[in-house]
Amino acid sequence: MITTTIIGTGNIAWHLFRVFSLCNEVRIAQVLGRNKEALTYFGKTASLMQKRAAIAKADVYIIAISDDHIFEVSESLIDLKGLVVHTSGSVPMQVLSKHTHHGVFYPLQTLTKDRSVNFKSVPICIEANNEKSLSILSQLAVSVSEQKHIINSVQRKSLHLAAVFANNFTNHLYHIAHTVCADHQVPFSILNPLISETAAKVAEASPYEMQTGPAKRGDLGTQAQHIELLKGKAEKDIYTLLSKTITNMYQK
Amino acid sequence: MITTTIIGTGNIAWHLFRVFSLCNEVRIAQVLGRNKEALTYFGKTASLMQKRAAIAKADVYIIAISDDHIFEVSESLIDLKGLVVHTSGSVPMQVLSKHTHHGVFYPLQTLTKDRSVNFKSVPICIEANNEKSLSILSQLAVSVSEQKHIINSVQRKSLHLAAVFANNFTNHLYHIAHTVCADHQVPFSILNPLISETAAKVAEASPYEMQTGPAKRGDLGTQAQHIELLKGKAEKDIYTLLSKTITNMYQK
Repeated sequence: MITTTIIGTGNIAWHLFRVFSLCNEVRIAQVLGRNKEALTYFGKTASLMQKRAAIAKADVYIIAISDDHIFEVSESLIDLKGLVVHTSGSVPMQVLSKHTHHGVFYPLQTLTKDRSVNFKSVPICIEANNEKSLSILSQLAVSVSEQKHIINSVQRKSLHLAAVFANNFTNHLYHIAHTVCADHQVPFSILNPLISETAAKVAEASPYEMQTGPAKRGDLGTQAQHIELLKGKAEKDIYTLLSKTITNMYQK
Repeated sequence: MITTTIIGTGNIAWHLFRVFSLCNEVRIAQVLGRNKEALTYFGKTASLMQKRAAIAKADVYIIAISDDHIFEVSESLIDLKGLVVHTSGSVPMQVLSKHTHHGVFYPLQTLTKDRSVNFKSVPICIEANNEKSLSILSQLAVSVSEQKHIINSVQRKSLHLAAVFANNFTNHLYHIAHTVCADHQVPFSILNPLISETAAKVAEASPYEMQTGPAKRGDLGTQAQHIELLKGKAEKDIYTLLSKTITNMYQK
């Protein structure tokens, strides 16, 4: 049995609380947060985070808050004996080095409150400053997911960057597609099978080989018509730059 | 029973042949192509397309070839009485107007040979120049798919543009993510659950609301680190432009 204390009440805290609650091998000692309203979700485990707050003893303290505040909050845990970890993709483990036992527990998934995901398939990237801590994080990871990965801070930063392309930027392209549909009175939902098939393909073949379309063919006529159809300057610029890059890559 | 003749041996022809062959309501009279080798797949229905080729009688002639050659090939069908359609997302129906009965049968999906898709969920966008032809295309569409849409040429062009963002450009972002992973020795497959969840989300909520990440937060520190990590100029330019666009959209 691993006892955890979660610090934070945001999306990741919300999902960890949910999945730990359902798991026999994990006990949640406490959830600490600054926002009273956000804390209500966490029931009797919830405590208000304040100066000299009584922090319950735990094996693992999980700091699940925005990147900018991780160091500051970790300072308030300095007298505790347990393992202190954060959940960020881009912050080095090093920021927690004042703690004898420290590490990272990074779920590589887009997590939003109120939308449940199958946590068993969420990759958990772990890192720790010693073997004992790594073993605890490993146990914690496998108790909630089938995908545990030992990833150092440099690799994690690269993964986070790759995730920005595969999630943040991709989602913005979906948004542009959504706008194009709305502007021309066609339902965006017609694109859903295309979107899911595009995503499914890369699990089996390299995206380099899967590329198709007017930019790959160097079809400038279609590209010119598309740019004219787009209403905003930003969309036109994105279309132009991505097409140019794809054409350069394949017409060599 | 609808009798069809398919002209072309590429990806769309391949998939239409496969799905029509499995369908009791459709009979394939002939598959015409210029490439002998590509024709072998189509067995006894295959015929070499040449001057004065004997073209089998059919209810519907489906021109499934690259955009640039649709008009030219349609000229060779000028004496036939059936309905002549193309399968392109961006070519107006108008190019077939020399034929008394003409239309469009556009499957909105990324189709590659050797990768089977569940055709029942492929949206088929149809258009025709008269009611009788539309009714035939409608019958043909519902015999292979559960998603039939009547879409005019202007709407179809917009859908095709939206599909360029949702498929071509998205796939290129996957490729960049793939490169980042390879450059830093992390397996790209760790991103698969993120990619499929990102795609699944837009079926339920608008991508505008689902946006997350350093660009949305206006987190310039993380952005600068990411740009430094990227190796190619094109990738840096794409990162910068997409981030700037997202920041402008949300920081207003």
